[in-house]
Amino acid sequence: MRAVDLIVKKREGGHLSREEIDFLIQGYVTGSIPDYQLAALAMAVYFRGMSFEETGHLTRAMIASGDLLEFPGFPHPLVDKHSTGGVGDKVSLILAPLAAACGLTVPMMSGRSLGHTGGTLDKLESIPGYTTDLTVPELEAILHAAGYFMTGQSEKVVPADRLLYALRDVTGTVESIPLITASIMSKKFAEGARGFVFDVKTGSGAFMKQAKRAEELAVSLVRTGESLKRRVFAVVSDMDQPLGRKIGNFLEVEESIACLQGRGPEDLLELTLRLTGWMLVLGGLAADIESAEAVCREKLEDGSAWSRFVCNVEQQGGDLDCILEPERGPRAAHILPLRARASGFVRRVDAYLTGRAAGLLGASRAAKGDEVLPEVGIELLRIQGEAVRAGEELCLICAGDPRRAQEAEELMRRAYELCENRLPPGKRVLKEITGK
Amino acid sequence: MRAVDLIVKKREGGHLSREEIDFLIQGYVTGSIPDYQLAALAMAVYFRGMSFEETGHLTRAMIASGDLLEFPGFPHPLVDKHSTGGVGDKVSLILAPLAAACGLTVPMMSGRSLGHTGGTLDKLESIPGYTTDLTVPELEAILHAAGYFMTGQSEKVVPADRLLYALRDVTGTVESIPLITASIMSKKFAEGARGFVFDVKTGSGAFMKQAKRAEELAVSLVRTGESLKRRVFAVVSDMDQPLGRKIGNFLEVEESIACLQGRGPEDLLELTLRLTGWMLVLGGLAADIESAEAVCREKLEDGSAWSRFVCNVEQQGGDLDCILEPERGPRAAHILPLRARASGFVRRVDAYLTGRAAGLLGASRAAKGDEVLPEVGIELLRIQGEAVRAGEELCLICAGDPRRAQEAEELMRRAYELCENRLPPGKRVLKEITGK
Repeated sequence: MRAVDLIVKKREGGHLSREEIDFLIQGYVTGSIPDYQLAALAMAVYFRGMSFEETGHLTRAMIASGDLLEFPGFPHPLVDKHSTGGVGDKVSLILAPLAAACGLTVPMMSGRSLGHTGGTLDKLESIPGYTTDLTVPELEAILHAAGYFMTGQSEKVVPADRLLYALRDVTGTVESIPLITASIMSKKFAEGARGFVFDVKTGSGAFMKQAKRAEELAVSLVRTGESLKRRVFAVVSDMDQPLGRKIGNFLEVEESIACLQGRGPEDLLELTLRLTGWMLVLGGLAADIESAEAVCREKLEDGSAWSRFVCNVEQQGGDLDCILEPERGPRAAHILPLRARASGFVRRVDAYLTGRAAGLLGASRAAKGDEVLPEVGIELLRIQGEAVRAGEELCLICAGDPRRAQEAEELMRRAYELCENRLPPGKRVLKEITGK
Repeated sequence: MRAVDLIVKKREGGHLSREEIDFLIQGYVTGSIPDYQLAALAMAVYFRGMSFEETGHLTRAMIASGDLLEFPGFPHPLVDKHSTGGVGDKVSLILAPLAAACGLTVPMMSGRSLGHTGGTLDKLESIPGYTTDLTVPELEAILHAAGYFMTGQSEKVVPADRLLYALRDVTGTVESIPLITASIMSKKFAEGARGFVFDVKTGSGAFMKQAKRAEELAVSLVRTGESLKRRVFAVVSDMDQPLGRKIGNFLEVEESIACLQGRGPEDLLELTLRLTGWMLVLGGLAADIESAEAVCREKLEDGSAWSRFVCNVEQQGGDLDCILEPERGPRAAHILPLRARASGFVRRVDAYLTGRAAGLLGASRAAKGDEVLPEVGIELLRIQGEAVRAGEELCLICAGDPRRAQEAEELMRRAYELCENRLPPGKRVLKEITGK
């Protein structure tokens, strides 16, 4: 087998077999197939695509390039959720304890912030003392105690993805649905979960700006999962506006606590219930989404989701005072209100600009290795469909550095679009792909 | 400027500017842009193509990567011809002295055999003593004396093409018309000629099997030449069957001599006159192709083309006895006839199989560095349209090794297709693209 012949085969629109894909990925990881051949192949895949079966082979070959995490000995189904990233997306912080309270075991591995989007690990680490840097025995102990853990991705899992992603990044081959699918799926399935719910976001604050492309990715994830004999559901959700009212690390912890205590904003609750509900269906703990959502509501109301959260924070070393009384948590030194210049209704708050404003304040990273600040961010006092009078506050800018606050204010001024007539808020869940 | 942004621009079907192409090629040659980025770009070009203007920029950038050969001080127009390679294609051996006899100056740089096709340099070097390894002052002296020289391509000319071609070869990006165009054009124009006639071959023995693709390349060469303000003509010629009756190094020298002495086969003469004629038109020595061909016929008949050939062979160190009396040249030890099994007419002699048979005997190289034999090859006693009776000879296999002769016979048996009714031989010149 020669790599060049396989490149030509794909270039001509052919289908690569499992053996051929194994040959390419193994060769790449071991260094017998050079970067330039994988780069040409990735570009051919960009133009020709891959069948779900081929994408499955690619996913499997990538998983095989590294270690597998396993959590045997748990009687409950291991199910996880993964989102493609957005602004104000604190769903994982609520969903994980809620799913655990409902009877699932959730080994959750998340990422850190980059660019305009936040990262689950950064949010949790804004709780003083909370650590996500844990050994496998520690993770298992936490899984037993709380029913879920929150940690980062292991370096030893799917080295092929790290190599391939770095290569795609510099060769203009990031935006390929099968390559994105294999990258996401391989990491997730190497990390121990047996079933997966994906939250594919679309809109200005999402990686996939167009709903059509997001749906394409969602379908690819579900069908590729099927070709791997794994149960995968996917939800396409709106990320044209921030999720909830708070954006920033500890601000989002606060809002998650409110949600776990039954006081969360409507849009955040809608999406969280839906995603957690599908996890229960997928894990066999509910027959359909309606009954699954009913169970979730019950576990929020009776305080059992909240107590799972408290248990996990304690287990992962977080300061309990800060979550029991969030006003004792990290607070920004400068709070700058943005006021409406005219009266009207909020038509839209742009997610991308809001994410950039929060990033500017220090809530997320411009580059790997940057530090993030726990206390900064944006609090939206008015969201889509709400009335505002001239001079009233639209949002609060919570900053450490007053000059940064000014710049963030400019961005938030552009993010807020007002109109004369009330436009009711749209649904967060746009589409659901729940397998055959 | 970042290479990745230019890759994405081309991937999305955009046009690269002269500055952008210069940046990519300069960066590649100097090592600041790595192989994998050029590989991804080449694949994007494969799918998206390039305008003639972009191809012109690419050609110019490649020329700028190395030395330029210049032959100043020649009063006659410098015009050359380049063929994409075929079986039995000895046109250069006849065309160069003929064009020189007509008043052109022809600095001809040719290649060596590879695969199933022969190489002009190998053919000439089958004349004992003939050398193509010459210094620039030697080349100039020969150009003054004979009006043409025959040499190989300088290593210092267009290093970008050597790098890029080696990369394309292993990344499945050879078959891209704009990349082929820039590769051919850059080498040719770096080698001193001001105008060019290209012979783009099509058929089983050609690099471009399909006439449509060959025409595409011919148009690309002419239009890209225009964008570079160079005069370029192109002819698409048939290479489905070997050119002439002799295939092999010294066998082709013999046939060339016959042609220069007015005894050449019809198809070889047709193509040679046409290509030489267009060179005269392009060099401004004839008003149209008809009068150009008439001049060429005259220079063949009056012996002046032949005397240019003799002069060149003498200048380049070749044994004159061998060309004045070709029967004194290299002769194969074993001559094996292939006989017809049935009576009929020759419908077709497959060029690819004939080239492979000659290669097997040692007339061309399977890999770079292989030695070629001067005396071996195939002599076609019957060609398309000619009658044969059962038991009569179809061709002669001229071998050094009798076992190889057997294998070559098998191939020639498959190469010969017979039929019951006479099919007249087709035209060699299929299409002409002679600029605006």
